[in-house]
Amino acid sequence: MPSEFDLIARYFSRGPVQRADVLLGVGDDCALLEVPAGRQLAVSIDTLVEGTHFARDADPRALGHKALAVNLSDLAAMGAEPAWATLALTLPAADESWLAAFAGGFLALAERHGVQLVGGDTTRGPRSITVQVHGFVEPGRALRRDGARAGDLVYVTGTLGDAGLALLAQQGLFVGLGVLDGLRERLDRPTPRLAEGRALAGIASAAIDVSDGLAADLGHVCAASGVGATLFLERLPCSAAVRDYVAGTGDWSVPLAAGDDYELCLTVPAARQAEAEALGATLPAGLHWIGTIERVAGVRLVLPDGGTIDQAPVGYDHFAGDD
Amino acid sequence: MPSEFDLIARYFSRGPVQRADVLLGVGDDCALLEVPAGRQLAVSIDTLVEGTHFARDADPRALGHKALAVNLSDLAAMGAEPAWATLALTLPAADESWLAAFAGGFLALAERHGVQLVGGDTTRGPRSITVQVHGFVEPGRALRRDGARAGDLVYVTGTLGDAGLALLAQQGLFVGLGVLDGLRERLDRPTPRLAEGRALAGIASAAIDVSDGLAADLGHVCAASGVGATLFLERLPCSAAVRDYVAGTGDWSVPLAAGDDYELCLTVPAARQAEAEALGATLPAGLHWIGTIERVAGVRLVLPDGGTIDQAPVGYDHFAGDD
Repeated sequence: MPSEFDLIARYFSRGPVQRADVLLGVGDDCALLEVPAGRQLAVSIDTLVEGTHFARDADPRALGHKALAVNLSDLAAMGAEPAWATLALTLPAADESWLAAFAGGFLALAERHGVQLVGGDTTRGPRSITVQVHGFVEPGRALRRDGARAGDLVYVTGTLGDAGLALLAQQGLFVGLGVLDGLRERLDRPTPRLAEGRALAGIASAAIDVSDGLAADLGHVCAASGVGATLFLERLPCSAAVRDYVAGTGDWSVPLAAGDDYELCLTVPAARQAEAEALGATLPAGLHWIGTIERVAGVRLVLPDGGTIDQAPVGYDHFAGDD
Repeated sequence: MPSEFDLIARYFSRGPVQRADVLLGVGDDCALLEVPAGRQLAVSIDTLVEGTHFARDADPRALGHKALAVNLSDLAAMGAEPAWATLALTLPAADESWLAAFAGGFLALAERHGVQLVGGDTTRGPRSITVQVHGFVEPGRALRRDGARAGDLVYVTGTLGDAGLALLAQQGLFVGLGVLDGLRERLDRPTPRLAEGRALAGIASAAIDVSDGLAADLGHVCAASGVGATLFLERLPCSAAVRDYVAGTGDWSVPLAAGDDYELCLTVPAARQAEAEALGATLPAGLHWIGTIERVAGVRLVLPDGGTIDQAPVGYDHFAGDD
């Protein structure tokens, strides 16, 4: 049985990305890194826990992808350019085939975005994965949550509700579809919207990634910014599968409150609408107008029939309802 | 019941340290940070898992201290000046009294070293704690593991084996002492040797913190540097309790192979011996000569009676012996 150090070295030291700004990577007490002159450092840390965020039999390759993707999504939401990652892995046993697949998924996504794994820790215990990512952003261009102002326009990238519908299907709560493979891909292998965040840094007034559900996450932006918002449900960009589901059930909670899509929700000052939309047309995931920022707190909904809901339902919260 | 976000905000947002280089702390998708011009960034991540690193009934205040301390110890071993920490906390339930005590221990140590908590994640699951620390070091002065050369002298700070003896006592394997409180303090609330690491940065040729046991950790330095070492057991600095234990049992494994002391083991070129020892005399934990670096690989021991052991026993390894 290889030791802890051998395991880390075998699966993670020989990553495909070798960056010039990494002076010392995996294997010492610390990694030694160089932030480019004139850039700010953006960092985010997130944990995925077996039984809470993924099932025991989850595909380890998809899990390796997702553990990095959800963190890269935070960099995207900040308008930052990704650079480095660290990985703290807790495993019940040193299962080499699991590790090889997990490392494969993790490192493939890292390579796609030029991210080098620079440090880590491997411990024994109930399976969980903590990743921290590090990126760079130019001073004044970071997309914070607190920059939305009344009169700004609300946009979202990509489509909403695919991951939520896949989760319903996986739980056996929705069986109406033959097109689940694409939805599953959205749930298991989310795409961090890094190009979109980079393009809109310096243009959007605020941003967040949609991990708890659109209504909840836009609510975080509104709370941080001291504003409110109105969303127009018929403007929510949805895949054909989600459109059919909503048409058949009347259940808007899938695009509105289900998490895990990892799209970006951004606010844009009206003065920069044309610029943002021109850019949006060139972006892989597109950029869709869905609502407006207003002075009055809270997130309000306008239904397709013109009716309104004063308080949008919010998404999943890990500790809500404990007592 | 407060939500996940409220919990984080309540216990960790209002930390006592507010640094000017933190442009945006807890509460956005990322923290935004500024590394001082001309400094390198040192980062390290470590996880403590219930059942592996601590018991279910462990004092949460001590645990908060230890989770940060073991990471700061990695910065110390690099000769880095600590700046920021992130915390990923997984808990079976939102136990507010546990959280308050844990945060108290964590933030008290953070304040002592001017460390600001800049980000985090709270998830539900089996209890575990992952901390990443970030510090600064001047180019060329970092204490790497790979810098030891034949002829260098081997030093250690503080005393060795206190935490190991406390662990034996805690496990009921050693009952010979009435002075356990001080030892328990060493196990539960280790002191990261930050002043010692900073002072010796640029003087020592290599360093590591003693977390797996002296023999194992010096072995890592030797392997990374392509050298070997001889340790003189009678030179190992020990508290009265550990000296008595070794005298009574003949068991050198406590100071030599037990982990968790979080002292620093450093190598110093002979040309800088006087400088290092003069500095050592001014340091809180002191600096003790214990051996020499040699060309031949491996860690050898010289016993007090002049006998020798060709291969030192090594310390704890999380995945060793799996099959």
